[in-house]
Order: sequence, then structure tokens, then C-alpha cells
Amino acid sequence: MKLEKLVGERFKERPSDCVIDSHALMLRGGYMKYVANGIYSSYMPLRRITRKIEQIIREEMDAIDGQEVQFPVVLPASLWEESGRYESVGNELLRFTDRNKAKMVLGMTHEEAAVHLVREYGLSYAKYPFMIYQIQTKFRDEARPRGGLIRVREFTMKDAYSFHTSQEDLEQYYDRCHKAYERIFARAGIPEVVSVASDSGMMGGNLSHEFMLLTPVGEDSIAICSECGYKANLETAESIIHNHRDAVSEELKLVHTPNIHTIEDVCSFLNMPAEKSCKAVVYQRNSDDSYVVLFLRGDLDVNETKLTNYLGTEIHPAVITLECGLKSGYIGPYKLEGDFTVLYDRSLEGANNLSCGGNVEEYHYTGLDLERDCNVTEFHDFAKITEGGICPQCGRPSITISRGIEVGNIFQLGTKYTEAMGMQYIDPDSVLRYPIMGCYGIGVGRLAASVCEAHHDEYGPIWPMSIAPWQVHLCCVRSDNAEAKACADGLYEELQKRGAEVIYDDRQVSAGNMFSDADLLGVPLRVIVSPRNLKEGVCEIAARDKSFSIKVSIEAAADEIMTKIQEMMNPALD
Amino acid sequence: MKLEKLVGERFKERPSDCVIDSHALMLRGGYMKYVANGIYSSYMPLRRITRKIEQIIREEMDAIDGQEVQFPVVLPASLWEESGRYESVGNELLRFTDRNKAKMVLGMTHEEAAVHLVREYGLSYAKYPFMIYQIQTKFRDEARPRGGLIRVREFTMKDAYSFHTSQEDLEQYYDRCHKAYERIFARAGIPEVVSVASDSGMMGGNLSHEFMLLTPVGEDSIAICSECGYKANLETAESIIHNHRDAVSEELKLVHTPNIHTIEDVCSFLNMPAEKSCKAVVYQRNSDDSYVVLFLRGDLDVNETKLTNYLGTEIHPAVITLECGLKSGYIGPYKLEGDFTVLYDRSLEGANNLSCGGNVEEYHYTGLDLERDCNVTEFHDFAKITEGGICPQCGRPSITISRGIEVGNIFQLGTKYTEAMGMQYIDPDSVLRYPIMGCYGIGVGRLAASVCEAHHDEYGPIWPMSIAPWQVHLCCVRSDNAEAKACADGLYEELQKRGAEVIYDDRQVSAGNMFSDADLLGVPLRVIVSPRNLKEGVCEIAARDKSFSIKVSIEAAADEIMTKIQEMMNPALD
Repeated sequence: MKLEKLVGERFKERPSDCVIDSHALMLRGGYMKYVANGIYSSYMPLRRITRKIEQIIREEMDAIDGQEVQFPVVLPASLWEESGRYESVGNELLRFTDRNKAKMVLGMTHEEAAVHLVREYGLSYAKYPFMIYQIQTKFRDEARPRGGLIRVREFTMKDAYSFHTSQEDLEQYYDRCHKAYERIFARAGIPEVVSVASDSGMMGGNLSHEFMLLTPVGEDSIAICSECGYKANLETAESIIHNHRDAVSEELKLVHTPNIHTIEDVCSFLNMPAEKSCKAVVYQRNSDDSYVVLFLRGDLDVNETKLTNYLGTEIHPAVITLECGLKSGYIGPYKLEGDFTVLYDRSLEGANNLSCGGNVEEYHYTGLDLERDCNVTEFHDFAKITEGGICPQCGRPSITISRGIEVGNIFQLGTKYTEAMGMQYIDPDSVLRYPIMGCYGIGVGRLAASVCEAHHDEYGPIWPMSIAPWQVHLCCVRSDNAEAKACADGLYEELQKRGAEVIYDDRQVSAGNMFSDADLLGVPLRVIVSPRNLKEGVCEIAARDKSFSIKVSIEAAADEIMTKIQEMMNPALD
Repeated sequence: MKLEKLVGERFKERPSDCVIDSHALMLRGGYMKYVANGIYSSYMPLRRITRKIEQIIREEMDAIDGQEVQFPVVLPASLWEESGRYESVGNELLRFTDRNKAKMVLGMTHEEAAVHLVREYGLSYAKYPFMIYQIQTKFRDEARPRGGLIRVREFTMKDAYSFHTSQEDLEQYYDRCHKAYERIFARAGIPEVVSVASDSGMMGGNLSHEFMLLTPVGEDSIAICSECGYKANLETAESIIHNHRDAVSEELKLVHTPNIHTIEDVCSFLNMPAEKSCKAVVYQRNSDDSYVVLFLRGDLDVNETKLTNYLGTEIHPAVITLECGLKSGYIGPYKLEGDFTVLYDRSLEGANNLSCGGNVEEYHYTGLDLERDCNVTEFHDFAKITEGGICPQCGRPSITISRGIEVGNIFQLGTKYTEAMGMQYIDPDSVLRYPIMGCYGIGVGRLAASVCEAHHDEYGPIWPMSIAPWQVHLCCVRSDNAEAKACADGLYEELQKRGAEVIYDDRQVSAGNMFSDADLLGVPLRVIVSPRNLKEGVCEIAARDKSFSIKVSIEAAADEIMTKIQEMMNPALD
């Protein structure tokens, strides 16, 4: 391929709306073009990258006995009604009607379609286990697409669904898939991806893992224990608090706290640490706007995922009206009257001598003992784990919080979908049972962007050989020089004949232009033919990541390049 | 792959709703499953077939300098508003709004997206020509999906778009693409596909060709000249009629024709041939329901595509009300009064002594001479060409009408989209010009079904080696026999080691079951290991199309099979 003919524009200026580097570089390098909010077209270089990623995924899915199938993008609403998700999933599920007014949805995940495809096939226990997967376009009507390909509305995803007759069998397969994922990320050039325990969210099921590329620009927060290696998404990490209970419980006392609203103000006014305050955070259920008042220790934050899971319904931060009976800024558990769901975080269990709102404007209490004063006996885990917090696995106070991009996920779904959709098999004792499912996703475009995020410099992406749009970027500096042009042309021919993927830049532009374009295309091997090099009878072979730069005689160049391609192609896999 | 593990069901009974064989066989063979009207999921065998077809297409598109890109499935309506097609295309364009009430469409073709992707890139004449293509899911909300994968709503399509600075350059590229298409169909196993001139329909542009697989079950009708090889879609084929004008024009005479409505009845009552009658066919414009009355010779049918193109608007057969002024069954050109568009087909040009409706209940005229009695001077081609009709190319009366499935199409679009969407380039004289476009489509699933339609018997598809789901179907008859099982297992291992794609049936089922499953999977090479064969130290290698069946020693089997695969892989290409 001649660079001169490559459709797409490359440019120097970082687009002002790009928050993360991969987004900026993939626009600047002519990889993709904005079409609509969260929707992009791909130019050839990105399409070549995603096709290679797809092929790596396909090979690894086939290696764990996956069968490639294809589900529709447009699905009848009836399938989602069967599972209950037509109602339960929010606006990210795009619903519409076709010309005959039939209700349809755009597939954002395909559990329903998978069960539909195999529910007659899987009637006998002897058919199990099996796994089917597809690599297909999906659409999720995200409220806030961002970060280029990191969070889009339309995306290509590999989604896999396994079916089992026992939890043990699912767990075995889940482990196989976990290992396949490690191989996929290693082969794609980001072996540093870690798996973390995660919340199953709208997917249902018990156990799930996310594969995270740790990077400060990630959207997700991950709790990692520096001592034992525990890793979990902040949404799911258990918060453990060892409370200090004072020997003597003071008396409950109403204190005038004029013009004081925030926890910080209250604590400083009362001269008490935040750990000794009982903070109120108020939500409303999306379904009926009813109020949920959650009390937790003043220094902690609410983990809304835990609260949502506990309530079994979606919530939003409350709008506190004058009529609702809550006194904004002065809400406390003592004598709180009204029709609210009141919940207590474990961080308050056993605590005494707390400050809290007085449920009266401009008044707080001190000396609160929840068990003594409010008869509270139920405490649950609703708080976010914190930096320096206690590890739920080893118990040491060694939690650090990192940011990460989720590049894949695996879920143990259980029988949620097979039960809802009436898929059963006959076991050896002629008993009807529901198969147990697992599901396994990888976003192709997001993986490409993540690799770029992990491997780039200020000049462009540094693609790993395994997924690079081309393997060799051949530059003919001064192509107006007949000797250089002939030599580069010959090398181009020879490399193509040997099966190398070459992008060839023989434009009559400055070496500076040439190299900045090459930097943006990020091809791992660069070969430079120039009149100056030719005087010594050599060309230059350099790595995009600057790990080497060597001069090789023209005669030996093709051999050397082919060897380098091979060496760089296969990263060490365990 | 072991057949025992293949997800999907095979069955004997032809589903009652299947009109064509490929539909029935692809359901019976576990290739696909109905999800909704015109929407299917694919099982592994079909996905393997479509992936091979996609790869053949990709190689041939790359060979004519195509650059693979990817456009979104979900497109903003604004792009289609730019081209004008948001308004002009009917209900087959699926329109909806997203969560923010933004108007979107599902891409059914991507001219707009293609222009959007390259309109900044293509600013200089030096960038031309170039071609971009994608292989992607599309959705067309067909009113009447039918024939399994032949006419669906969701489908995978290769669509390509080329951009040029002159008509000559487009024509050259159009020819290259025409040849690439011939190679694609030949490689996919249907070299018999013919290209026919076609109507450009909603795509716009001047010249277009459809690639047709001729088969009685095809949806399209094609006029073919048995003398000169002229081929055109019936929609576009010019109808040439040499009228016989009687030497003497009789007098116009009103005749009482009680209870006579149809052309046949009138002609038989008046004892005149249909060629001597002037028939009225009435339509209404979709836009405002205004009436269009078309007169043509009684023995001919209206070509609605020609009429639509002439009017420049969509039409439907008229509902003739009492108030509209038309007398159903008695409509004629003489003294036809009312607010109608009245048109005349060329078949009436110069004709005399015609019968026609009297515009009065129960009366017809005879002796009509259109030019004399009605002052008609404009005649256009609105009729369908007929079997035995005159060839527009060689002038001989040697037209035959065949049926065909359209497996691909190519269009010379001209500047319709670049003008509408404001894509311009600067030519060498610094003048701004609109690039000229071509577009080129192939439906992947329809091509698979067409190959099945062309190559099957009553027992199943007969897939060509190039696109077969597997290359070898290995049957171990009597796998309870240890020797047979060991031999088959060994051959399975050996063939896989050599890179053959093998589906291995080692189930303990009858040979009859085994072979009927193999017939349904249609794998071109079948290898049978059985205790009986083993007594002679041989296995049987047979072609699914019955072209050969040989016995080969076990030792020589793998070699022989690999040779056969190679031989069957490459059909002769010109």
C-alpha cells in the first residue's frame, strides 16, 4: 500500500475536545472520523487493527471450543420481554418500532438471542457444555459517550455465551475463558491487563470479573491490595471499618449550629473529627421518587452500586423539597419522622458519641449512640472502600485505589436467563433442569484504543506487531533521487513478495513530514532508504518504540526485516 | 470439530412455509434460525460459509485497490437529509429517535456515510481515484421479506464506493469492478452468474448492472436475447413494438358492450385481436393520490419502473372511486374528461382501428385513431418487454424472459451525492468540481443462499470447496468398533495436522443417519471409515456432488484427501 493513496487525513493539532491521548492520536492519525455523538467511521488503518484483534479473539475463542455464530443487531422486543430486561433496562437500550409497528430493540448484549438460538438444541444433558460466540456490531445508547473509542454508542464486540449443567462445570469453563482472555490481551500487546472482581449489574448472576488496563485516564476505580494482591472494582469492593467506641457514651445533646450545613463545617464548629459524625445522604427511587435516607460515617462516601443492589431498584440523588419533611443540612437519625426508607452503613455499627443533624433547622446533636438512642440493629455495607482502607481479603490496611479501562468482562450468570426464557434440559434422571450460563465480552474498538493508550508517545501510537495496521513502514527519503527510489521500490516489491505488510511512503515530501506521518501511523518497524544511507550501501531499520535502530546492507535488508517481524510478532505468553 | 458437539438441529421435514429449496435446506441443516420477520441468527456452519465469502470478496476488492473501512450501522438522519434521501426513500429506511430525541436511521446503504468520510480528504484532484469499501450489517425494512436469506431485513453486505475526476476514469474502474465481481462469483462457485443492465432506482445515476443467478425461483425477471446476448432486467429493457397500421382508418363508432369489462371480454365480443385494443391502466401518485391514466396496447403490461422514473415519483395502483370521474372498465382516450395525467405507450404510436373504452358505462368505441381522434403526439416507453419481443440491441424478435436472483450490483452514480452533500475537489486549473462516484454491492447471505440454490439436491446443499463450512466430512461408521474408531481418530488427527478443515462424525448412530446429516451439511469431500472397508484396508473418499467415489488405502488416505481439497479449491477462472 502506498501512503500517498491512503484515504484519511493526518494532522498536527490536538483536537480541543479530546480528553485522552488515544482519542486525539486516532483522530490525528486518520484512524477514524466522528459521525455522531458516540458514533465513528473507521478508516483503513483502524479497520486493519480491529480485524487483527478480531482474528486473535476468534483464534482464542475457537481454542476453548467456542463456535462462532451470528445474532441479529435488530432484535424483536419480545425476546427482551421474555427475560424481563425490556422493562428493567434503562434508556441505554434503544427501543423503536418497525414499519409494521412491531416493537424492536438494537442489541446491546445478546443473552436473550443466545438462549433463543439454542433452547431447542439444548434439550438433553448430553449436549452440554457448549459455548457460542459472535463478533458483531452493538449499540448502547450511552448518556455520555466519551474518550473516543473508550465509551461509544456503536461498537463491535465479541460476546460469548456458555451453557452448563452444573456450577462446577461453569466454574471450570469460566477459568478456561479467564486464561483465554489473558492470552488475548497479551497477544494484543497489553499483557499488563489485570482481572478484578466486579459487580454483575444488569447482567445478573453471582460472580464476575473485569479485565482492566490500569491507567490514570481510566473511567473505573479499582481497589488493589498492595499486600495480598486482592483486586476489585470499587463498585463491588467490601468496605471494612473498625470503629473506635469510646468507653463512656455521652449524653445526647441538641446544639445550636447556625449557618452550618456541610459535614466539614459541622465537625470544625464542634471540634470533632469527621469519623465521629453521622452523615445523611438522601436518594430517591427512580420508580416512584420515594425517599431513601442513608446514614454513614462522615468521612466516607456512598457506593451507589451497593445501595442499588440492596434496594433492588435504580435510584438518583434526591431533590429535597420543603414538603418532604427532610431538613436539608440537618438530617439525623434521632426522631427522624416521615415516610422514608432509612438505612445505616456498617461504618456506624457500635459507634458512639457521634454528631448528627437535629432534624430541626440550625441544630445538630452530639453524643449520639445509635443503638441506645435510635434502636438501630441492622447495618449493611453501603460505603466506598478508601485509599489506605482495610483489605477484605487479608485484613491489612493496604488498599490503594487505581484507575482503569475495562477491556473485557466475564460473568457467571447462573440460571437468570434460562429460567426467565424457559430453556430446560432433561438430566440423566429424566428431570427437567435449567442450564447454567456464563457470558464473556470484549469490546474490539475499546481494546484498540486501550492498546494505544498504553503504548504511545507524544507523536503517535506505538502499535504492537500483532495488531499494527502494517508491519513495515518503508520511507523513501528524497524519492526524486533515482537511485533511492529504485532501491526503495525494489525493497517494497521484495517485502511484499515475502508476505510482509508494507506501507510505502514515496511521496516527495520532507523527511520531517514523512516521519511525523509515520509516527502517527505507529507501524512498529520503520525502514528508511535515503541517498545518504545509500552512499554507505545501507538502509536504516528502526523500531517505532525506539528500542533499536540499525543499519543493514541493502542486500541483507529484506532478510533482516522479515526476521524482525517474526521476533516482534510473538510476545512471550505463559 | 466433532459433529456431536455442533450446536444446531438438523431435521428431515421440509418446513411448510419454505417456498424455495435453499431456505428449506438451510433451516433443515441447522444453518440458521428465524428470529423475527426477515431476521435470522446464523449457526456455526453458515457463519463459516459467510466468513469465507467475505474473505473472497475482501481479497478481490483489495486487488482492485479497495481500502477496507467501516461505517456505522446507526447513522444520524442529518446525513440522509443532506442527500435528500431522508425524505425520498420510503418505509424501507428505518427511522427512529435516540434517547436525546435525535433523529437517526439504520444504514441500508452508505453513499452518504462514504461521502461524509472522504469529503475533506478528497479536496485535491491528486487524491483521485480511490475506492473504499466495508463489509457490514445493514437493515432494510422490507415490506415482504421472503425466501429465507434471499430477501431479508437485516443482512451483511459488502458495499464499495469509488470516487473519480472524470466519467472515463469511472468507466474504467467500473469495468475493473465488473471483472472483480465475475471473479468473486466464480470463486464462490457460481461462475454462471450473468450481468444485466438494470434500473438505478433510488440510487440515482445513469448506468448500472445487476449480477444475476438465473433460476426459476428468482424474484427478478430478465430479458435475454438468444441471438445477440443482450441482457437486461425486465424493469429497464426497452420495449420495441412494430405496429401494423391498417391502410384505411375506419370511423370512430360507439358500441354497446353490456356487462363487458376486461380486455379479453371486449376483444372477444368485438371479435378483434388484443393488439387492436387500447387498454387503460390507472395509478395514483403516492404523494397526493392524483390519478395517472396510462394507455397501452391491449396485449401488453405496464412496466411500473419505467412509469415511476418518467413521473419522478412513487405510484400505486389506483382506487377508482365513483366521484373521480373515471368509469372503471370503460376508460378510453376519446373525450376523457377530468383532472388526470394521461400518458400513451409507444405501442399505440401510429396505430388505428383500435377499440377502447367509451368513458360511459357499458359502451366502447371501435375505429379509434389516436392521432386523428385525440391529437396525441407524445408516446413513451412504458411497456414490459415480452417473450418473443424485439431485442433493443440487435432488432431481432428473439427475446426470452428468465428469472434470476440478484447477487450483486454496480452503479455509476455520477455526482448525485457529491453535489447534494457539497463534496468538491480543486482540479489542476484551480476550478472546484464535484467528484463522480460509483458504488458496488454484494449481499453476503444472499450469495450463500444463491450458491445453495444453484448447487443442491433433495438431500441438502452441495457447497463448493471454496466456501464450504468444512472441507472434509469424516464419518466413522460403527464407532463402537475399536479398530474403525482408532483408524478414524488417527485420520482426523492427521488431517487437522495438515491444515484440513474437518467435521468428524463419530457418533454411535446408523450409517443412514450419519449420511443424511452429512448431506445436509453439504461438505464437498466425504471420507467413510467402516469395519467393512477396513477389512480391505481402505477407506472411501466420495464427492458430495457424486462426481467420484474412490477407495484408497488407509496409508494413502491423508495424501489423497489433501490433493483432492487442492484440486477442488480452485475453479478455473478466466
